[in-house]
Amino acid sequence: MSRPVGFVGLGIMGAGMAGNLLKAEHEVVVWNRTASRAEPLVEQGATSAVTPSAVAEQCDVVFVCVSDTPDVEAVLFGENGLAAGLRKGSLVVDCSTVSPSATRAWAERLAEAGISFVDAPVSGGSEGAKNGTLSIMVGGAADDVERARPYLEAMGKTITHLGEVGTGQICKLVNQILVVVNMLAVSEALVFAKAGGLDLEKTLTAVTGGAAGSWMLANRGPQVIARDWRPGFRLDLQQKDLRLVLEAADSLGVPALATSTVFHLYRTLEREGLGAEGNHALVKALERLSGFEAAQD
Amino acid sequence: MSRPVGFVGLGIMGAGMAGNLLKAEHEVVVWNRTASRAEPLVEQGATSAVTPSAVAEQCDVVFVCVSDTPDVEAVLFGENGLAAGLRKGSLVVDCSTVSPSATRAWAERLAEAGISFVDAPVSGGSEGAKNGTLSIMVGGAADDVERARPYLEAMGKTITHLGEVGTGQICKLVNQILVVVNMLAVSEALVFAKAGGLDLEKTLTAVTGGAAGSWMLANRGPQVIARDWRPGFRLDLQQKDLRLVLEAADSLGVPALATSTVFHLYRTLEREGLGAEGNHALVKALERLSGFEAAQD
Amino acid sequence: MSRPVGFVGLGIMGAGMAGNLLKAEHEVVVWNRTASRAEPLVEQGATSAVTPSAVAEQCDVVFVCVSDTPDVEAVLFGENGLAAGLRKGSLVVDCSTVSPSATRAWAERLAEAGISFVDAPVSGGSEGAKNGTLSIMVGGAADDVERARPYLEAMGKTITHLGEVGTGQICKLVNQILVVVNMLAVSEALVFAKAGGLDLEKTLTAVTGGAAGSWMLANRGPQVIARDWRPGFRLDLQQKDLRLVLEAADSLGVPALATSTVFHLYRTLEREGLGAEGNHALVKALERLSGFEAAQD
Amino acid sequence: MSRPVGFVGLGIMGAGMAGNLLKAEHEVVVWNRTASRAEPLVEQGATSAVTPSAVAEQCDVVFVCVSDTPDVEAVLFGENGLAAGLRKGSLVVDCSTVSPSATRAWAERLAEAGISFVDAPVSGGSEGAKNGTLSIMVGGAADDVERARPYLEAMGKTITHLGEVGTGQICKLVNQILVVVNMLAVSEALVFAKAGGLDLEKTLTAVTGGAAGSWMLANRGPQVIARDWRPGFRLDLQQKDLRLVLEAADSLGVPALATSTVFHLYRTLEREGLGAEGNHALVKALERLSGFEAAQD
Repeated sequence: MSRPVGFVGLGIMGAGMAGNLLKAEHEVVVWNRTASRAEPLVEQGATSAVTPSAVAEQCDVVFVCVSDTPDVEAVLFGENGLAAGLRKGSLVVDCSTVSPSATRAWAERLAEAGISFVDAPVSGGSEGAKNGTLSIMVGGAADDVERARPYLEAMGKTITHLGEVGTGQICKLVNQILVVVNMLAVSEALVFAKAGGLDLEKTLTAVTGGAAGSWMLANRGPQVIARDWRPGFRLDLQQKDLRLVLEAADSLGVPALATSTVFHLYRTLEREGLGAEGNHALVKALERLSGFEAAQD
Repeated sequence: MSRPVGFVGLGIMGAGMAGNLLKAEHEVVVWNRTASRAEPLVEQGATSAVTPSAVAEQCDVVFVCVSDTPDVEAVLFGENGLAAGLRKGSLVVDCSTVSPSATRAWAERLAEAGISFVDAPVSGGSEGAKNGTLSIMVGGAADDVERARPYLEAMGKTITHLGEVGTGQICKLVNQILVVVNMLAVSEALVFAKAGGLDLEKTLTAVTGGAAGSWMLANRGPQVIARDWRPGFRLDLQQKDLRLVLEAADSLGVPALATSTVFHLYRTLEREGLGAEGNHALVKALERLSGFEAAQD
Repeated sequence: MSRPVGFVGLGIMGAGMAGNLLKAEHEVVVWNRTASRAEPLVEQGATSAVTPSAVAEQCDVVFVCVSDTPDVEAVLFGENGLAAGLRKGSLVVDCSTVSPSATRAWAERLAEAGISFVDAPVSGGSEGAKNGTLSIMVGGAADDVERARPYLEAMGKTITHLGEVGTGQICKLVNQILVVVNMLAVSEALVFAKAGGLDLEKTLTAVTGGAAGSWMLANRGPQVIARDWRPGFRLDLQQKDLRLVLEAADSLGVPALATSTVFHLYRTLEREGLGAEGNHALVKALERLSGFEAAQD
Repeated sequence: MSRPVGFVGLGIMGAGMAGNLLKAEHEVVVWNRTASRAEPLVEQGATSAVTPSAVAEQCDVVFVCVSDTPDVEAVLFGENGLAAGLRKGSLVVDCSTVSPSATRAWAERLAEAGISFVDAPVSGGSEGAKNGTLSIMVGGAADDVERARPYLEAMGKTITHLGEVGTGQICKLVNQILVVVNMLAVSEALVFAKAGGLDLEKTLTAVTGGAAGSWMLANRGPQVIARDWRPGFRLDLQQKDLRLVLEAADSLGVPALATSTVFHLYRTLEREGLGAEGNHALVKALERLSGFEAAQD
């Protein structure tokens, strides 16, 4: 009889994803640093474990979905971490967005213990996590990815195997470059439109459907002109991801000029206390610089 | 009995648009600098005139769709121009992408002769012009726009009245800011992806459908990695439009930093003879700078 | 007996330069749009003429020093302009900072009337003009430059003949690129220093004398930290010169990314009414963007 | 009787600096990872020790001058490091260019053992180190700085006490921002000059002495046009320092846009193997982007 699947990290993303594993009738053992966050999943049928290593002892495949590189490191190799409980031949699938080079280092370290590793960061926000419509970018050996696939398909709509370990993370960084530079485009365009005296609602109507269109324009443009800063994706988490982009660009020796500009603008906004606003608050940096505010009259 | 509608300028865009006026059973009088380009439309039922003023003498509403600000100026006020033939109470609708300030000056000059003016630049490329699915951004007095609307609806899918004369042109510039900065995003992202060792086709599959998505990514990303530089929109025309953006930004006193960066990159590519390639050849500037080429292996 | 030398344009720069011609015992005929500005020079021994063409009728060599390209155009070819009064074989030396391409066009037009032209823009500010220590960048035929040299040596310390007509203006634009990007360096450095909690006076002491040093740092750094915005060179005139740089860069097909960034920052400051402050007010754009103010405590 | 002064790290900078301590008749105990580099100093009268801790046992004041943050860390706290040998009341003066935040952490850690710490990074290159004309930027408690001053005055011409521990390092980063953005100015200006057809030697003559002037223009401009890439300061070390600038900017929440642009350009050049060239090879990035080469004909 097959053993249950583990899930470590039940934040907004992880809770939705683990929920979809349950809906797909997988047996799931969960752990979260703040234990109370496991309760809703236990009510849906999950088993709760007291430590990551306790999860590991019951499972051969364990998913991880936490905030940042040091968090994954702690979950894997810290006290009562997964590495302490996993047996030879098991598989860790990391859905966090973290450093590609750290990812490769973890995979090598786990391989020494006979444990496989797949990186599988996701895109699509909390709605995607909840609805099982995430885009999942996967790096790892083909066998390991196939082993993870049934679970991934319960959580995402587009599962793309990019290549070896780490390529999922690099692809996620590519995704983030596009997101923020598209948001830079929206910001510069709306500030220009305001300076030019345009009605911004009509402007969005006119330009969203054609060659100028983007997901950010369609979804965040209306929020900007309504001055609605509630996050789809938090500015401070976006900033963290750009830090990963710039570290990777430095490591690869490739310039990332536009992304770097956005990084600096976000960093200032974050320092001034806007970290909990959405990543579309980027427009505020251009507003301050230009003296024009992209608000619908 | 109603008089025919005029159409001056039968390039790739104008020919498709005038064709749609004919399909909508409007009587159309056409003129083009290179007369032979009128022939296919005459075969579809149009009447050909020998000069713009000859068009004007037969029509109360005349559309213009030419390349650049001086071209519109010549068609309106040059020898045998429209102004020489139009009678009081007639209407000119300019679908070219040209300077907002020149646009306002023309409208004032025509108003002195009792002629109305509407600016109505379009987006959607040659396919949109042919299929009648253009997005049309309209500036002018409400009465004049209503008068033009039946014709505009024959040529476009989205007709947005932005405000007074010139606002259509400003909105088109907003559109172009979005187009080129989104293309900058695609370029920086694909060069980074290549440097990171990713398979670029798989990368596009993974990122196109989500928050990173844009029209440029979906349509030009595949062309970039296939090294297919055939234009959807020519780089040199894109460059001309950015010159209009930067002139307007200067005039309005609003910064346009990202657009300006793209302008400089395009200008170099144009000088080196790539003006007839598509605007997605922008990636070549980043490729040269970085030493990585965003080609599918 | 030799004829007097003409001087058209008696602004801050021109007045000082014409004064130095007088000190060098040249006979000088002057004209200025606002006639009262000629009086101090008449007191020093100059003759005043009622129009540029009246200057031209008395002189074989005429210097021009006015504000912008259209001003030179008017002085040369407008009503009662120099071209109307100069005889064959005469020489115009233009010390204004203006468009290189307009400069070449004027030279060709004057050549048709047998009149020679030299461009000789200057650097060194009002002090340099007054003290005769300007750096003068000269473009023109070698014979014409030699003919102008005795006068130039009365006005400047460094006279550099760059090449044919227009090269003086291009060299002046090179000068302006250096000036403003060096000021960008000063601005970014001082804002960083402030954010890092440094005493700014001590910082200037520590960095001005070495590899980080520049004229802008030594002269404008102390003004910035003392919040003294009196102009050495006015922000709006600097902005005008950058417009010439960007037009020339566009014409040459060479990117000017850093200069372009400064242009956009200055343009916003100018729109907000800071045009009469010095070009070191650039720092205010970075202060607004960053939230840090580079003021000595 | 006073004890000798220690000097750890005898690279190009350290060797010159320790030599000047000897010339000023201080007794000096030295150590270098590659022991042979100590020999010339021993010939000048220095004593050589086998480990940093052996230096520490003979001295109450020890200078450190090594390459990067981890090197200082190793010298201080590694096996046989200074901390193992220094007695209570002694003083470490770090002349390396390293992280301000690491600097503050080291000072706190040493303070627990009763050891004082001063950061004193230097500017002025190998000539400055040899000739004792360095600019030294000092952070630390006033008493500690006074204790170090006699030695600093033997090595530098300008000794500036900025403030508490770490401020010397921050000031050095301010210095590096100025250096590289001034070099960006030189690069953009010379590429523009070349595109404009100017003679570059004459251009340098015309612009170096005035408001456009900088140390980089005067010293590196002629090298650029002569295509002489021998380092004053190595590109890869410059790049390391910019990494410190960007880390500090991130930590402080202050944008550093121009510096960041240079960082990305240097990183590409370094990846392509130009790390051992001088920091003026920055111009090669703009040359590649523009297609113009700033070489004297």
